[in-house]
Amino acid sequence: MAKDTTRLAIIKEGAKLIHARGYNNTGLSDILKAARVPKGSFYFYFKNKEDFGVAVVDYYINLLQGIGQAFLNEQGIPPLERLSRFMDIFQKHFESMDLRCGCPIGNLSQEMSDHSELFREKISEAYSLMTDAIETCLKEAQSQGDLPSAMDTTKTAQFIFNSWEGAIIHMKLVKSVEPLKVCKHMMFEYILKISPRENTIVR
Amino acid sequence: MAKDTTRLAIIKEGAKLIHARGYNNTGLSDILKAARVPKGSFYFYFKNKEDFGVAVVDYYINLLQGIGQAFLNEQGIPPLERLSRFMDIFQKHFESMDLRCGCPIGNLSQEMSDHSELFREKISEAYSLMTDAIETCLKEAQSQGDLPSAMDTTKTAQFIFNSWEGAIIHMKLVKSVEPLKVCKHMMFEYILKISPRENTIVR
Repeated sequence: MAKDTTRLAIIKEGAKLIHARGYNNTGLSDILKAARVPKGSFYFYFKNKEDFGVAVVDYYINLLQGIGQAFLNEQGIPPLERLSRFMDIFQKHFESMDLRCGCPIGNLSQEMSDHSELFREKISEAYSLMTDAIETCLKEAQSQGDLPSAMDTTKTAQFIFNSWEGAIIHMKLVKSVEPLKVCKHMMFEYILKISPRENTIVR
Repeated sequence: MAKDTTRLAIIKEGAKLIHARGYNNTGLSDILKAARVPKGSFYFYFKNKEDFGVAVVDYYINLLQGIGQAFLNEQGIPPLERLSRFMDIFQKHFESMDLRCGCPIGNLSQEMSDHSELFREKISEAYSLMTDAIETCLKEAQSQGDLPSAMDTTKTAQFIFNSWEGAIIHMKLVKSVEPLKVCKHMMFEYILKISPRENTIVR
């Protein structure tokens, strides 16, 4: 395999293990075994485990950019409906994983924020990416008259993303999608109130 | 020290380490060293590390019961103001810890839900304790006419607690209380709307 291909293979396998077990609880040897790469060659691709971990977050950032582009930016669909579908897509994704693992970005944020500045900066990038994408939807909805012009879209986007992250943790705990459904319901019932003409939103 | 005293000392020291580092990332030898207990005596107090970890969650449940009793049940203060103060108390507590560590219950929920049924059950108890205490406040507010009688207090309490947990993770990430303030502001601006006579609430 070329250098880049091997590096990506290690990142992908490592990402799966870290998602399931956490960063500190995942040994380098497990990652290399899963990626079928000789143990000694790890340092050819990464400076150290932290450098590798940050590359995993970068990998997720790329994935999230693609998902955000595909769903939150989808033209021809009203902005708040896009947000609603985005939540549904994630709910289905979590169901396909038997409600295990949760959000890799939220997990690493909680596990690593106190312990690595490099992780903290990279995870902050991922958070900003998501809240910016949500805010773009809210602003579009505002410009179309679906949300009050006085709404602070920055705070609202942050609140939506953080509340969703909190709901994901509860989902993992109770092994039920109910917390996700409650989160979405509360958002659309109280905050993202749709005007009557937007009643096609899937709740 | 009597058996119970020593056991509690191990739990307290272990709780601090787990709060700072996570459960998997905390070694038994570190806990025993911090609690100044001979290494070999651990199994006199606990069956295994999991048994010890669950005892740590039980310790937090007792703390939370005390805090809930003191703040969410405080008589003579309007119920929504109690909830507002409760959030302020936690914000101050997190500030006193330099916005590190976050919520021990949220942390363990995320770290352990997929890996230990005993943890999962015990942490669920802690979650229910908190959401029940919040719901009691909401119901009181409802009975006093401060919240609409149609509000689903169970869902709202769950949403408040989960959103707060999500805000705590973001607080840890950005090392700022802004996410907590945004969470509280959004809750009181959109969901827990106070009638004019209740305008003493500290936002």
